Amino acid sequence: MMIYDRLFRDTAVSEIFSAVNTVQRMLDFEAALARAESQTGVIPEHVSAPIVSQCRVDLFDLGGLADRCGQAGNLAIPVVEQLTALVDAVDHEAAGYVHWGATSQDVIDTALVLQLRDALSVMHGELARLHRTALRLAEAHRATPVVARTWMQHALPTVLGLQFAGWADALDRHMGRLREVGGRALVLQFGGAGGTLASLGAHGLEVGTGIAASLELEMPVLSWHAHRDRIAEVATTLALLTGTLAKIARDIALQSQTEIAELAEPAAPGRGGSSSMPHKQNPVACAIALAAAVRIPGLAAGILTGMVQEHERGLGGWQAEWESVPEIVCLAAGSLHQMLHAVDGLSVDVARMQRNLEASQGRIYSEPVTLALAKRMGRSEARTVVERASQRAAAEGRHLQDVLAADAVVAAYLTTAELGQLFAPLSCRGVSQEFIDRVLHAGRREQFGDAGE
Amino acid sequence: MMIYDRLFRDTAVSEIFSAVNTVQRMLDFEAALARAESQTGVIPEHVSAPIVSQCRVDLFDLGGLADRCGQAGNLAIPVVEQLTALVDAVDHEAAGYVHWGATSQDVIDTALVLQLRDALSVMHGELARLHRTALRLAEAHRATPVVARTWMQHALPTVLGLQFAGWADALDRHMGRLREVGGRALVLQFGGAGGTLASLGAHGLEVGTGIAASLELEMPVLSWHAHRDRIAEVATTLALLTGTLAKIARDIALQSQTEIAELAEPAAPGRGGSSSMPHKQNPVACAIALAAAVRIPGLAAGILTGMVQEHERGLGGWQAEWESVPEIVCLAAGSLHQMLHAVDGLSVDVARMQRNLEASQGRIYSEPVTLALAKRMGRSEARTVVERASQRAAAEGRHLQDVLAADAVVAAYLTTAELGQLFAPLSCRGVSQEFIDRVLHAGRREQFGDAGE
Amino acid sequence: MMIYDRLFRDTAVSEIFSAVNTVQRMLDFEAALARAESQTGVIPEHVSAPIVSQCRVDLFDLGGLADRCGQAGNLAIPVVEQLTALVDAVDHEAAGYVHWGATSQDVIDTALVLQLRDALSVMHGELARLHRTALRLAEAHRATPVVARTWMQHALPTVLGLQFAGWADALDRHMGRLREVGGRALVLQFGGAGGTLASLGAHGLEVGTGIAASLELEMPVLSWHAHRDRIAEVATTLALLTGTLAKIARDIALQSQTEIAELAEPAAPGRGGSSSMPHKQNPVACAIALAAAVRIPGLAAGILTGMVQEHERGLGGWQAEWESVPEIVCLAAGSLHQMLHAVDGLSVDVARMQRNLEASQGRIYSEPVTLALAKRMGRSEARTVVERASQRAAAEGRHLQDVLAADAVVAAYLTTAELGQLFAPLSCRGVSQEFIDRVLHAGRREQFGDAGE
Amino acid sequence: MMIYDRLFRDTAVSEIFSAVNTVQRMLDFEAALARAESQTGVIPEHVSAPIVSQCRVDLFDLGGLADRCGQAGNLAIPVVEQLTALVDAVDHEAAGYVHWGATSQDVIDTALVLQLRDALSVMHGELARLHRTALRLAEAHRATPVVARTWMQHALPTVLGLQFAGWADALDRHMGRLREVGGRALVLQFGGAGGTLASLGAHGLEVGTGIAASLELEMPVLSWHAHRDRIAEVATTLALLTGTLAKIARDIALQSQTEIAELAEPAAPGRGGSSSMPHKQNPVACAIALAAAVRIPGLAAGILTGMVQEHERGLGGWQAEWESVPEIVCLAAGSLHQMLHAVDGLSVDVARMQRNLEASQGRIYSEPVTLALAKRMGRSEARTVVERASQRAAAEGRHLQDVLAADAVVAAYLTTAELGQLFAPLSCRGVSQEFIDRVLHAGRREQFGDAGE
Repeated sequence: MMIYDRLFRDTAVSEIFSAVNTVQRMLDFEAALARAESQTGVIPEHVSAPIVSQCRVDLFDLGGLADRCGQAGNLAIPVVEQLTALVDAVDHEAAGYVHWGATSQDVIDTALVLQLRDALSVMHGELARLHRTALRLAEAHRATPVVARTWMQHALPTVLGLQFAGWADALDRHMGRLREVGGRALVLQFGGAGGTLASLGAHGLEVGTGIAASLELEMPVLSWHAHRDRIAEVATTLALLTGTLAKIARDIALQSQTEIAELAEPAAPGRGGSSSMPHKQNPVACAIALAAAVRIPGLAAGILTGMVQEHERGLGGWQAEWESVPEIVCLAAGSLHQMLHAVDGLSVDVARMQRNLEASQGRIYSEPVTLALAKRMGRSEARTVVERASQRAAAEGRHLQDVLAADAVVAAYLTTAELGQLFAPLSCRGVSQEFIDRVLHAGRREQFGDAGE
Repeated sequence: MMIYDRLFRDTAVSEIFSAVNTVQRMLDFEAALARAESQTGVIPEHVSAPIVSQCRVDLFDLGGLADRCGQAGNLAIPVVEQLTALVDAVDHEAAGYVHWGATSQDVIDTALVLQLRDALSVMHGELARLHRTALRLAEAHRATPVVARTWMQHALPTVLGLQFAGWADALDRHMGRLREVGGRALVLQFGGAGGTLASLGAHGLEVGTGIAASLELEMPVLSWHAHRDRIAEVATTLALLTGTLAKIARDIALQSQTEIAELAEPAAPGRGGSSSMPHKQNPVACAIALAAAVRIPGLAAGILTGMVQEHERGLGGWQAEWESVPEIVCLAAGSLHQMLHAVDGLSVDVARMQRNLEASQGRIYSEPVTLALAKRMGRSEARTVVERASQRAAAEGRHLQDVLAADAVVAAYLTTAELGQLFAPLSCRGVSQEFIDRVLHAGRREQFGDAGE
Repeated sequence: MMIYDRLFRDTAVSEIFSAVNTVQRMLDFEAALARAESQTGVIPEHVSAPIVSQCRVDLFDLGGLADRCGQAGNLAIPVVEQLTALVDAVDHEAAGYVHWGATSQDVIDTALVLQLRDALSVMHGELARLHRTALRLAEAHRATPVVARTWMQHALPTVLGLQFAGWADALDRHMGRLREVGGRALVLQFGGAGGTLASLGAHGLEVGTGIAASLELEMPVLSWHAHRDRIAEVATTLALLTGTLAKIARDIALQSQTEIAELAEPAAPGRGGSSSMPHKQNPVACAIALAAAVRIPGLAAGILTGMVQEHERGLGGWQAEWESVPEIVCLAAGSLHQMLHAVDGLSVDVARMQRNLEASQGRIYSEPVTLALAKRMGRSEARTVVERASQRAAAEGRHLQDVLAADAVVAAYLTTAELGQLFAPLSCRGVSQEFIDRVLHAGRREQFGDAGE
Repeated sequence: MMIYDRLFRDTAVSEIFSAVNTVQRMLDFEAALARAESQTGVIPEHVSAPIVSQCRVDLFDLGGLADRCGQAGNLAIPVVEQLTALVDAVDHEAAGYVHWGATSQDVIDTALVLQLRDALSVMHGELARLHRTALRLAEAHRATPVVARTWMQHALPTVLGLQFAGWADALDRHMGRLREVGGRALVLQFGGAGGTLASLGAHGLEVGTGIAASLELEMPVLSWHAHRDRIAEVATTLALLTGTLAKIARDIALQSQTEIAELAEPAAPGRGGSSSMPHKQNPVACAIALAAAVRIPGLAAGILTGMVQEHERGLGGWQAEWESVPEIVCLAAGSLHQMLHAVDGLSVDVARMQRNLEASQGRIYSEPVTLALAKRMGRSEARTVVERASQRAAAEGRHLQDVLAADAVVAAYLTTAELGQLFAPLSCRGVSQEFIDRVLHAGRREQFGDAGE
């Protein structure tokens, strides 16, 4: 048990990468190897069953594996040693055919691929749920006015649905990326000690195809021991996802600030409290997603750095993946899990959004006012008028509409009624509704497939 | 002129990201905007031509732009200022419609996308050439024996064509990735100050579609000011490519070491020399590719970190892209350019490879010998026999074949002739020929398209 | 001219790393080398002057250097070539002694060290000014109440001076770090082609000492071509500083948000405007400092990765430093420069801080109220009472003091007057004044030296 | 048990960061707090003993802590909850004073500092041993000829002792850095919820001083909740060390290649074997050190990125440290541990080094030959002669000395005997002996202190 697992990681995904499951996945490879080799006559037919029978992690001494791994230099060596001993106890001849023709990296990499397949499947499901939630929110709030903020300052009014549509749109792309990387990365590793499957004579491809079929993995064109772009792409794809999740988290956290208070993570007893301040409601999910986005870029950089692997199998770069790849997956899944929770139960304070629109006393409408004046008096003059009025409004604590209404130059071009119409959030909605519709349409196609068209 | 540009960067790609071209691409956006707005009636029809006429970088004061950018905080502000002044000099009314309804990020991002399109196009061409070269080498050396090395130690004999096939196979995947990221990332940015295109009234989408058509970019579902996954994916995709290029470079550099001398970068007068040692022939292209792989993961991590952008437009994360994204593209292109040169003219010393196979005095054949014995005497016994013989051979400086030939236990299972057949590189070729054929087949499909099937 | 230089970099520090100055610093090494060698008799006495006379960058063709560098693989080769040609034109014999006994890395590294010395000196000056400014602000606002925020939520009242004292305290440590890294890193590089200074016979150390004296650098125990910890430490030290500067920037940006408006960067005409919104006042300095902190960690990671340099001089890792180290220094200096400007002219709205303290309607006082009650009724009971009252206050939009005053249980333990005293910012000042005094004391010692004690 | 712990981490250091020890260190803080508060009268004197009595990790339910941590958002909350319950069972009143006036971050950070102190102490010991070993090797091999290699090509002969002296010199600097960072980072964290220690009234500093004394930590000038430069500096300092260790590992791995075979990690039964190839002796320690140097730069970049923490306590950046800081320490310690083992038992094949000096058939002597000729015939002429001779020697497979001896131009300037003297490794030793002596001298001062002078 790692003390922070429950906080930073997704339980289901962490379980996939547990020591127990890692070893079982390695044994799944060994079992599939024995079956495929006996079917193709590479090893005697009768030795397969005894080998397969021992490929159960509950028969293994995990502490012993960890110790021996520290000495041997990789985990496959002790797993094969213990498996050989177990098989030997039931069938001495069969023990001689354990791991036949394979190399350590064949079993370690294939086990990783099997784990990645499971983890990506869990994550794809959660991502689809989060995407649906964002679509739902985009639709629900398609006409809710809210401040658009740029450079952390009020810019213009917009609608909240557009913010959520932006989330949905990005999540939509991430679903596409997960599919693509899955198509490329989820393949068997099988090349033997030198990459030629030399010890299987002419049967190498046939055995490989058999293992792949048994594990329901694609057979790659070629084994890929020292070409790690597949694995690294999993890392970078999840890093991209983590970035979007943290962008969402940052926005929720910013909009949850005490003075702003537009959004809030769902409250729950015992969640997000403080050890000293009873009133605190900390945005825990946002903290986790933001922390993941602090950690994962550097972890992904490590995987990218480690791609520079020597010759047929590298020294250092490959070993660097063993813990870092699972770590990236678990942290990204943890972030996804937390943000699904946060977005799904998101509190939205529509009234507060309305109030915040007034925080700048009308200066948020400076662009529409400028453009309206520009059409009549020329833009640079309009800009000068509005800029000066904005500064005066700020300095004197007055509403921009009042300052402008009292300005003779402005009055020459805009009536009071025209001016008033400009100071309304929905005058700034532009094509937000069309944008939202486009996102909803694309999102439903992603969710329900081309057939849903 | 940056002093190291010629060394680290691809000239054509650097040119795409020069200050001159960056500003021109921004002006291309402004011109397309004016045209689309006049066509849709958002601005008067006759103001478009004067604006478009001034969208030529040679009319601009670049030093002034750089100065003003440092003060204003982004490059769009001074570009729009200078453009407005230029237009004003030819048509005062038109000057009021420069940049109408757009925001700084619309022009900066779209210019970047246009540059990325150009750069990815150059890179796709070079990547395709490198891929073809690797395929050619794989075929040419399909039966050239060479040492397979793992953990930087001799493992088994393999064939050189398989090493090249591994390069081709990875490059094939990178071509697919470049296409995919291009499909996702090369889209217009157009949302206006608040993301709603408010100042264009109901014409926002129409204008956007017009700009996109004019610039031959896709119109995205939604503007994406603070969702940077598209840009970040360009960075990570090029980082993945850089990793593969550096893996190739590392191998060439290792195989070029004075004691190994199997491969060499093409020699050229004045290239790779030393300021003090006349005999030196430094692998410059490999150094560049390796240096790129040291730098780019961290640069990509920065882009990933910067994805956490606030609200509708962020503070810090976006600004961090302005130099880093071009830097990643230029360095990756530089690495690609160098490796294309190095691989295209690669020297291959087949005789030396044959000699190196003998460097361990036969110990490189320990796996095939073990498996041959294992089939007759049981594997663990076989392994013990060969391990002991290997150690003796190493300690006594004798050839493993001789040590085994003199071993009574071995003699009981293998005749001298059988033993001799095991000590031949091609006895280890396994299914290398089939693997190479698979790579050639897939590679030709990638190069010549589905129609070539 | 790089288009974003004025925005992201410090002009003085960028100048130090310009191509012109880089080449001049290399020539400074060559001149010092010639002098030291002629003084020790390694080269004829009369050849020194002609060499030294040509060590002026204005005599060099920089475009030619850049071109030739791209081919040769490092900048020293073309610099030595051009220098040799220049010397040859004035004294043929002397040309034969240019760069005598040195290797490319000797000149490249020493030039870098000289540039780092200049840059660190500029930065130390600006850092000291920023430190003094923070001390001044800490003192000026030692009793200004402000919200302490944790997890981006209101926590407790504190004093603004403590925030500034925190900045000063961290900056104080960075001044110490800059001194220490300077002491370790600013040393001569001089080892010759193989690190033994073989071509200087027995005079190697003597010549080295002469060069060091001439350049006012320390002579290291040993040359350090492939041991890059000195250079990498400069990178990490500046990365640490960048982190602190961005922490300050993040706080200013957060406290400048429209709804919070406690702090603001100094306004200036034409600074931080928007291309479309006349009212915008973007925090440009904060954006730069935050962008630097997005970019520099990855750049520093690249330098750390590049430390793994092969043998006596590496392939890839060293080359990766050539642009990245100057980039880190220039970006860190740019961040420092911007934050000095921002902090020096920082606007502080004390009234607004007072108002923000009331944003949670008294819930910010939950800890002192809880502790006051805890002393009388037991803590877990007190916590329950206050937590419930806080929730009710939030739900009903009432002030926590009012809710508590109306609570019979509370009334049993605290009088209305006692309760009222708890709801005052200065009741939370604790030992903030002592903390501030400690920072002022330590800071003045740092600024004025031990003698100031 | 993590399955790869024994491989990648140092057992003693991992133990320091185990869940059990982490919680115990938090309890050590709580005990020290209670003691200091009762001594200063902040809490009743008699409540201290019951609290202290329960500050034993064996009383705690670690699984429950992990679960609750996942919900609460930090580990301090459940630790304080369980501690309060335990105290409550023995003394109800005392339970009300558990964690009095402290905040979660006070206990979490101080526990981390205590763990860092322990870990740095272990590492300093191992680093000192490694340093001594390098000094010993430098002295032992001060006159052993070996190839100096640059850009992964033969450069010149040098002596092996100089290679080891380079290691020692870098390790010496790292010992200094560890001391410095310890002096800055190993300080108490204690500020209370708002950083003012408000709930301790006027006793805050007194209590802090008491805790610091009890835990034998320095009392800092100020609490440092959101200023993480101290922690980040630990990360970067260990990253620097990791870089040097990996540089050493890279060199050993390169010099262990089958064709080079100059160095080898100590062999041990069951270590570094292959699951398929009985002859393999993989450099496991080098793999670990190289893997650490792939992973740690990105982890350190994450810590640097996380420095940008908001306000009085941040959201995301701090949380990102909780696992990453211990990870960096454990991996760096693992690398150190492995390299101590590898260097301590390093096999050195002096004869093979001598043979490798001949691998280029004399071309390794091109610089001394050039300089010898240059003194008599002018350098550029000399360089041309030797460059041409080197190319001919390489092309014709002849020894450079033979080619030069047959060259009439050379014969005009150098006698056969003079030429022969140049082709000797020790003719290139330069001031290597003096350099080694300087390193030995400085190293002994570092090891034995100033008193040893």
